[in-house]
Amino acid sequence: MPEFFNVKPPRCALEGLLSRLKIDTRSELVPTTEALGRVTTGDIISSEQLPAFPRSSMDGYSVRAKDTFGATESLPAYLEVSGEVLMGASPEVRVRPGYAAIAYTGGLLGEGADAVVMIEHTNRVNDKTVEIVRPVAPGENVIQQGEDIGTRDTVLKKGHQIRPQDIGALMALGITEIAVAARPRVAIVSTGDELVSPEMTPSPGQIRDINTYTIAAAVTQAGGVPVPIGLVQDDYDAQREAALTGLTNSDILVFSAGSSVSSRDMTAQVLDAIGKPGILTHGIAHKPGKPTVIALIDNKPAFGLPGNPVSAFVVFGILVRPTIHSLMGYKMPLRSSTVVARLSRNVSSMTGREDHVPVNLYEQDDVLIAEPVFGKSNLIYTLVRSEGVVVVPLDSGGLYSGDEVTVTLY
Amino acid sequence: MPEFFNVKPPRCALEGLLSRLKIDTRSELVPTTEALGRVTTGDIISSEQLPAFPRSSMDGYSVRAKDTFGATESLPAYLEVSGEVLMGASPEVRVRPGYAAIAYTGGLLGEGADAVVMIEHTNRVNDKTVEIVRPVAPGENVIQQGEDIGTRDTVLKKGHQIRPQDIGALMALGITEIAVAARPRVAIVSTGDELVSPEMTPSPGQIRDINTYTIAAAVTQAGGVPVPIGLVQDDYDAQREAALTGLTNSDILVFSAGSSVSSRDMTAQVLDAIGKPGILTHGIAHKPGKPTVIALIDNKPAFGLPGNPVSAFVVFGILVRPTIHSLMGYKMPLRSSTVVARLSRNVSSMTGREDHVPVNLYEQDDVLIAEPVFGKSNLIYTLVRSEGVVVVPLDSGGLYSGDEVTVTLY
Repeated sequence: MPEFFNVKPPRCALEGLLSRLKIDTRSELVPTTEALGRVTTGDIISSEQLPAFPRSSMDGYSVRAKDTFGATESLPAYLEVSGEVLMGASPEVRVRPGYAAIAYTGGLLGEGADAVVMIEHTNRVNDKTVEIVRPVAPGENVIQQGEDIGTRDTVLKKGHQIRPQDIGALMALGITEIAVAARPRVAIVSTGDELVSPEMTPSPGQIRDINTYTIAAAVTQAGGVPVPIGLVQDDYDAQREAALTGLTNSDILVFSAGSSVSSRDMTAQVLDAIGKPGILTHGIAHKPGKPTVIALIDNKPAFGLPGNPVSAFVVFGILVRPTIHSLMGYKMPLRSSTVVARLSRNVSSMTGREDHVPVNLYEQDDVLIAEPVFGKSNLIYTLVRSEGVVVVPLDSGGLYSGDEVTVTLY
Repeated sequence: MPEFFNVKPPRCALEGLLSRLKIDTRSELVPTTEALGRVTTGDIISSEQLPAFPRSSMDGYSVRAKDTFGATESLPAYLEVSGEVLMGASPEVRVRPGYAAIAYTGGLLGEGADAVVMIEHTNRVNDKTVEIVRPVAPGENVIQQGEDIGTRDTVLKKGHQIRPQDIGALMALGITEIAVAARPRVAIVSTGDELVSPEMTPSPGQIRDINTYTIAAAVTQAGGVPVPIGLVQDDYDAQREAALTGLTNSDILVFSAGSSVSSRDMTAQVLDAIGKPGILTHGIAHKPGKPTVIALIDNKPAFGLPGNPVSAFVVFGILVRPTIHSLMGYKMPLRSSTVVARLSRNVSSMTGREDHVPVNLYEQDDVLIAEPVFGKSNLIYTLVRSEGVVVVPLDSGGLYSGDEVTVTLY
């Protein structure tokens, strides 16, 4: 009976792949307004400053700060109103010593003014005169030229994933187009004589394909483009043909099923035969997902995921998703989507193996509880019924009820 | 000087809107493969069971469990091999007492078998005979019919946001099309005489529009469809016209700027005049974002966000995003994207006001640290330079360095 002799910890297996991969991120120009979620391929540098002129951060009066020194409620400073700086207009109003000009939030100061008194600290005595009841320091309530961002500043670093605020900030500088990583194309092949397309009614012994669809959606979510190649039978030549087709049109190849070591399992053979260096890892120290194949084929990563839909989905998350991110040059820490909770009961594991435990979350006395989802771990509906996953680390024999755990949300 | 007399806590303001809103979610049918991120508008019920037949969960031999009782390494049970149940094929092999049939992971058992012995616990003696070295209980290594999901089971509840595993699980049942909430359309109006389009070079006193773009991207991220109406000057008739245009084509109306109480601020007036009941809230106990308008116009929610891009973005997150989710009937707890960290320094606040403090995250001695981002809080680049936000609650006067805080990631 063949066995896995050299299972590798998932992290080592992934590093083994990425360290051998020559990453050459393809770049494409997109309108900034369509760049949400895309990843920059170079530093983006500002060619202007923001704000372009000193702006008032309050409604009130622009003044020379010196003219307000010592002003109090009982002994106000009286300034003459020289006019109003309208929004969007050039400052045609001068603020000479002893003068003030009406200023609006976001607007310019009068020429010669160096601070703004909030309207709350003024009383308009008459058309010509305003009373100032608190002093301001030079620069007070003013956003200086370039205070938000300066000329030649780095706006966004290379490898940054674009968020809504980044889009607004780029548009503020007139940067209406940016270079981002092309979405990696991921070819998906589902293998197995028992598989039929979901539109069909399976005969006894047949089942509908799940992996093509779960993996395609996960590819989209990770920022890639899924390229489904279709269903392939347990036949060496057919699988080899599908692998070659997938690799021609894509950056990454994902097989599912056939990744174990029995006579029916041909993925490792197929992936090893079609290019160099071939198989890097066969077997990872992870549950579920031990029978996993990692290969590098003429500088394109290829994966043989287990046929079980839960295992395939889990291994996708620990190996394929980070590979998609690497191909895009994604540099931000992957901190998203975790919550801290207390485990509702003991979970056993094995030292030397990383375990993936699906959980549900609920609140009890204001404490977030993670409840491991019952059911055999290889049923797709255990994933549907769970909100996230707790990872039992490689060096742990299990977790105890009441332990604080980090739940990665699906 | 006009003031805000009745600022409301953000949560009350939102509840005040949602409780008055008659929600009538529009439903549309989409292919399951395109439903990622969409929200179900009804319970989805299974019309089949999964698995449709008892399946082996191991490679091995299907047997009658009784025939293996008492089998050990030293005293194995010997069974005659009656054949092999091929993947995807009907079970044409019988397993009578004293017989076993080759079984594959995911495949059927031989007819009459009630358990599977793992291949690791067998030795093939010759073509005809297999040695069993451990007993199995009835049902062992078998996934029973309907064990994953039963006929008439609820597959997904109403208000569920579709994830990759849900797509696979639906396809497994042949559910290739589902009813989801239509994406709410959100009309976006940016107001202000000083605003120009990002393609233009601003003259002194002018600035490029930011809010249309930040808000549009945030709408997309929240599951809505942004409908930009364009730039509108500080003119009552023009704003009224833009509001009416926006409402005609959309489910939600979002104004930015003009939401405060000075003479230039017309949003409240405009939103109050065009439909019933009009303004619900003017002023929220939140920093940034106090000058915010919430209105309900002939059962369509309308918001007047502050003109400052940071305030507009923050208030969008606390008011507009949950409103978009409500219109879709989204029911899942919004738990995503938070991490727990320790605050790197004191943050002062005011009791009775919720504060939104942008932070960066870094690790120090294996502890995640949240470092408040320096800079005036109303500059768009403070948001670009930060990874998330810490909320100082309404009833708190501030937070201390070293406090454990929950950071909501952007």
